[in-house]
Amino acid sequence: MKFTSIAPMEIDLKKVDITDPFWSEYQHLIKDIAIPYQWGALNDAIPDIEASHSIENFKIAAAKLENIARQDNNPLEKEAEFYDMVFQDSDLAKWLEAVAYSLCKYPDAALEQTADETIELIIKAQHKDGYINTYFTVKEPDNRWTNLAECHELYCAGHLIEAAVAYFNTTGKRRFLDAMCRFVDYIDTVFGLETNKLQGYPGHPEIELALMRLYEVTGNERYQSLARYFVEQRGANYDSDQHYYAVESRKRLGVYHYDHYGPAWMSKDRAYSQAHLPISDQKVAVGHAVRFVYLYTGVAHLARLSADKDKIETCKRLWNNMTCRQMYITGAIGAQGRGESFTSDYDLPNDTAYTETCASIGLIMFANRMMQLEPDRIYTDVMERALYNTVLAGMALDGKHFFYVNPLEVSPKHIPHNHIYDHVKPVRQRWFSCACCPPNIARIISSLGQYIYTQKDKVIYTNLYIASQTKLTLNNEEVTLTMACNYPWEEQISLKVACQNAVEYTIALRLPLWCKNPSIAVNGQKISLDKISLKGYAHITREWKNDDHIELTLKMEVLRVKSHPKLRQNIGKIAISRGPLVYCLEQADNGEDLHQLSLARTATFALIKGVGALTGKTLLQTTLLKEDANDDEDNNEDNDALYILDSKTASKTPQPAVFVPYFAWGNRGIGEMRVWVDDSY
Amino acid sequence: MKFTSIAPMEIDLKKVDITDPFWSEYQHLIKDIAIPYQWGALNDAIPDIEASHSIENFKIAAAKLENIARQDNNPLEKEAEFYDMVFQDSDLAKWLEAVAYSLCKYPDAALEQTADETIELIIKAQHKDGYINTYFTVKEPDNRWTNLAECHELYCAGHLIEAAVAYFNTTGKRRFLDAMCRFVDYIDTVFGLETNKLQGYPGHPEIELALMRLYEVTGNERYQSLARYFVEQRGANYDSDQHYYAVESRKRLGVYHYDHYGPAWMSKDRAYSQAHLPISDQKVAVGHAVRFVYLYTGVAHLARLSADKDKIETCKRLWNNMTCRQMYITGAIGAQGRGESFTSDYDLPNDTAYTETCASIGLIMFANRMMQLEPDRIYTDVMERALYNTVLAGMALDGKHFFYVNPLEVSPKHIPHNHIYDHVKPVRQRWFSCACCPPNIARIISSLGQYIYTQKDKVIYTNLYIASQTKLTLNNEEVTLTMACNYPWEEQISLKVACQNAVEYTIALRLPLWCKNPSIAVNGQKISLDKISLKGYAHITREWKNDDHIELTLKMEVLRVKSHPKLRQNIGKIAISRGPLVYCLEQADNGEDLHQLSLARTATFALIKGVGALTGKTLLQTTLLKEDANDDEDNNEDNDALYILDSKTASKTPQPAVFVPYFAWGNRGIGEMRVWVDDSY
Repeated sequence: MKFTSIAPMEIDLKKVDITDPFWSEYQHLIKDIAIPYQWGALNDAIPDIEASHSIENFKIAAAKLENIARQDNNPLEKEAEFYDMVFQDSDLAKWLEAVAYSLCKYPDAALEQTADETIELIIKAQHKDGYINTYFTVKEPDNRWTNLAECHELYCAGHLIEAAVAYFNTTGKRRFLDAMCRFVDYIDTVFGLETNKLQGYPGHPEIELALMRLYEVTGNERYQSLARYFVEQRGANYDSDQHYYAVESRKRLGVYHYDHYGPAWMSKDRAYSQAHLPISDQKVAVGHAVRFVYLYTGVAHLARLSADKDKIETCKRLWNNMTCRQMYITGAIGAQGRGESFTSDYDLPNDTAYTETCASIGLIMFANRMMQLEPDRIYTDVMERALYNTVLAGMALDGKHFFYVNPLEVSPKHIPHNHIYDHVKPVRQRWFSCACCPPNIARIISSLGQYIYTQKDKVIYTNLYIASQTKLTLNNEEVTLTMACNYPWEEQISLKVACQNAVEYTIALRLPLWCKNPSIAVNGQKISLDKISLKGYAHITREWKNDDHIELTLKMEVLRVKSHPKLRQNIGKIAISRGPLVYCLEQADNGEDLHQLSLARTATFALIKGVGALTGKTLLQTTLLKEDANDDEDNNEDNDALYILDSKTASKTPQPAVFVPYFAWGNRGIGEMRVWVDDSY
Repeated sequence: MKFTSIAPMEIDLKKVDITDPFWSEYQHLIKDIAIPYQWGALNDAIPDIEASHSIENFKIAAAKLENIARQDNNPLEKEAEFYDMVFQDSDLAKWLEAVAYSLCKYPDAALEQTADETIELIIKAQHKDGYINTYFTVKEPDNRWTNLAECHELYCAGHLIEAAVAYFNTTGKRRFLDAMCRFVDYIDTVFGLETNKLQGYPGHPEIELALMRLYEVTGNERYQSLARYFVEQRGANYDSDQHYYAVESRKRLGVYHYDHYGPAWMSKDRAYSQAHLPISDQKVAVGHAVRFVYLYTGVAHLARLSADKDKIETCKRLWNNMTCRQMYITGAIGAQGRGESFTSDYDLPNDTAYTETCASIGLIMFANRMMQLEPDRIYTDVMERALYNTVLAGMALDGKHFFYVNPLEVSPKHIPHNHIYDHVKPVRQRWFSCACCPPNIARIISSLGQYIYTQKDKVIYTNLYIASQTKLTLNNEEVTLTMACNYPWEEQISLKVACQNAVEYTIALRLPLWCKNPSIAVNGQKISLDKISLKGYAHITREWKNDDHIELTLKMEVLRVKSHPKLRQNIGKIAISRGPLVYCLEQADNGEDLHQLSLARTATFALIKGVGALTGKTLLQTTLLKEDANDDEDNNEDNDALYILDSKTASKTPQPAVFVPYFAWGNRGIGEMRVWVDDSY
């Protein structure tokens, strides 16, 4: 069967060459450190970290299938055991996807061979009917699709599909893609509204967005239809005992997989799984944050390709609730540890925040799909915020240590003693038993070239300012856009056009909300932005010819950000940002008791260069006011009094202070950190 | 065997007649509402509340023992079941203790008969060897003393002992006391360092303080020795697998009672049970807050009667750590829900506070023992703080609703959505499955007469200012002290002496730390406090004769209290107090979004009278500043922006505001509450 692919809106990674000093360093880190390190982890070859067993699981599953085929009885089958999480396959899939992206920019025959061999291993673990899942193959061969709420089969399928699409796009090799099409063809025979099918859908969304990508690359309408089925079936019968998770749960006679919040909690807490309501009835972002953004990434993609107004409205409504009521300034989402989930409007505690790295990665994917649907700075500003703050914070500057949880305030000495902080780590970890975040960081950074531009009709939107060369096609004419900048540190961005023949089209430059006075010159001529600004983008339409160039200046003032007054956790507090970066205070620069420091209205900031672990980063130097120790001695028996009964105005002493970019915190040992600082006006 | 009792330092309740308007109302509430209501609850006679089953458990246990005695086979034994908590017996014991105290002041033949009958029921459930515990009698008759870490047998014994002591003191009836002596005599044969005994000690301290009270009333040295054994054995072998809880746990072959934080957590988390170290090695208050204060109440009692310097030092060290580093301004302790426990120095979150009512009751008992040990205002100031704020907050003004958890900041609309608040209730509850707090409030309020004075040698310390008549004996002369005041609302306190013959002794008046300029007049003559003040008490020594009188004026200014600068949760915040009362803001008076209100330095306060549910309470009227809604529209796309990127000085609008006493919060429906308010200087 031959398909005609639907051109995806993402720019082909092979046509993007990132030359950016900031991001090249990260892409090198992914290529040179993170990918090999994670390969070691997936093979259980890194000492003293949580075992992954991902590769081993595939080997055991493959051996088992081989034995079945030979009707043989290999001792491996009996002795070997699947290890750890039911979704362990997805870690390998995300790693393969990251490898695929990385190979675009950095061809590497040895790495490609490793990937090919890994793909062969995966295919060996594929059943004749197309099914792949090492957990069920090894541990519960008779129980496929019996526990969608908890057991992640469709989630793992989704990640394998994404990896296969990426690998096909990079290498042109169809073997992995074809195997995944067989898998999906089989899934399509299992799920649907027909009475001979299961009316189920995954407990962890992911396959929806993956199916849309598979649809684009294959053009097979059935994949879009299957995605639509999964999206539209979600939450059906939410108000009756015919809800699918209740039905399948009854069939299992009380057997469940997870019990850390009580027996079968994952089946029962349907908001957690985004299964409490049909999507069209959802008013606010609730439940597991990663599940939420993965789901709506798929929904937004489907909504665009099907021009489905109701789904578009749903996506916009939930985007607005999430970003205007439930998102941290760092572009982080999911305020609580329990259920890794959203809480409610205007409830964003800084110290007990969960704010998983993966959730911000999913937020970027969702933002990207929304931008493709209806270009608007509200999406790409959030994309930039999440990328430069939470996602980057998720990985240490050495590429080998990771945060899963990204709080905005940390007081390490209190963490071990107060269980509200049980999920918070004051330093990045080498690996996790649930290792979703490290390979997710690897794949987003290695695929960053897809996020720089959005091309829609004859408009090229610049979303992210990343020095790069990108080849685009307009009216069959190849146009090369060369972006030059030293973002996020410097305010000058230049964009140069190279082409053989002049073509008329629009270049729409994102004017970030954080920049009060952007200015643009085209071929040296300053232009007025008044009439050409639309949804936060300056639209410059002309017949662009070779050597045309744009100079964009995004003045990077140091901003004092405050929160909406409904947000009680930040009342009276200020966060400092410059350009896309949120800054924070660390104990390494400012001593302990960071909460005693406040920011006067008169404070000025100087840009200084980071040293040591922060070399290459721009830091902000200022003077803060430090609350003095108790001095109301006449009112108290000693200076140790916990309460000073008749307090005078607190005396405060100026103290030199340094703010560092939030993404770089925690790279200099254990210490306090704080984003929101008391406003001492 | 006949014992000579050791005079307890507590004033005999029969010699105290509380006439105080404030406290008489509460004592009436206990007598008229709380005691009958709780009796109903203990008998499962109150509809729609958590079942108690306490009386039923005793009936089942008694019937079982009767059947065993008759070698009969009553169907009750097979059908009836012990219900709920393993420590359910203690709720009945605390109720009986409260009844005993209440009968002192309010003789009530019907109530006394009910108590007598209940005592007979308890004695029917006593085994021949003296053992009483309905859980083990009904459910695990062969497993006595096999699970000290978890199963509360000695804890329940302690509460029964306290009830028996109180009932004997009130009624002079020995039946309950004798039964408890038989129980303790039996316990004494079971526990001790001798090889034929168990080297164990209770997972929940309580019996230690009860044994000291039993020792005082009986004079039986063995009871003091047994208390000393339990105290000194605690934490033995803490660094080896010979720790008693490990030993008994191994013997049970993995059977455990509680698993809500994982299997056998209660045995394993030894700090929770105060069993992680010998007490002399404990440096800071840790673990379950109620266990901690109950233990050290007993230790302080033992330390005083045995003049044990090491134990005295331990008590002082831990008192200081607890009150100077880990106590809320409301006299509440135990900052976290997990394990109902302390966290660490200077970590007192206001919204996620656990701060159990019972912990503050235990704190008062500990303070009382410390005061008896070494009189000092540092103990009685805390006693007053805990009593007038957290303990009173524990019960609604109707006597029928209770707080178990006492946060200092509540935002009801966020509670259901953020699991860090799972333990917080925005309104008082009718009962609890773990119903320790309601009868504990009943017994502390009904025994309040014991806390007004401490008589030590020839010094009479006034601890609490409660209008009352108290008969004391000095040099064999009966002296009646009549205290008159309208505390905690008014500043005038008078103390009048009535006696036949003049006697020389010292009246030492507590000068609360919150009062900057106390003044005292004796028989109309103002006296200088400079030379007579010692440890926060003004010592007036003279030959006191009939009609001598003291006028004490404790000027009650409205104080702006701030916290030690190490306490990050309260930095930049002010709490308002007047006299012993901490005040708070409530939504009922001040609208929602209380966090937007801040207090200017120039604010003045007027005393106003409460109305409705707050009739009789003095409220504080002032003007606060309310942060205006976003007005930086030029910087933002709409007023809904979650982050205002370049904030100007927040504009604030004066708003009339009312502070109410913290103890009275939550009596006017569900709404926000907040103790710590932003300091807008």
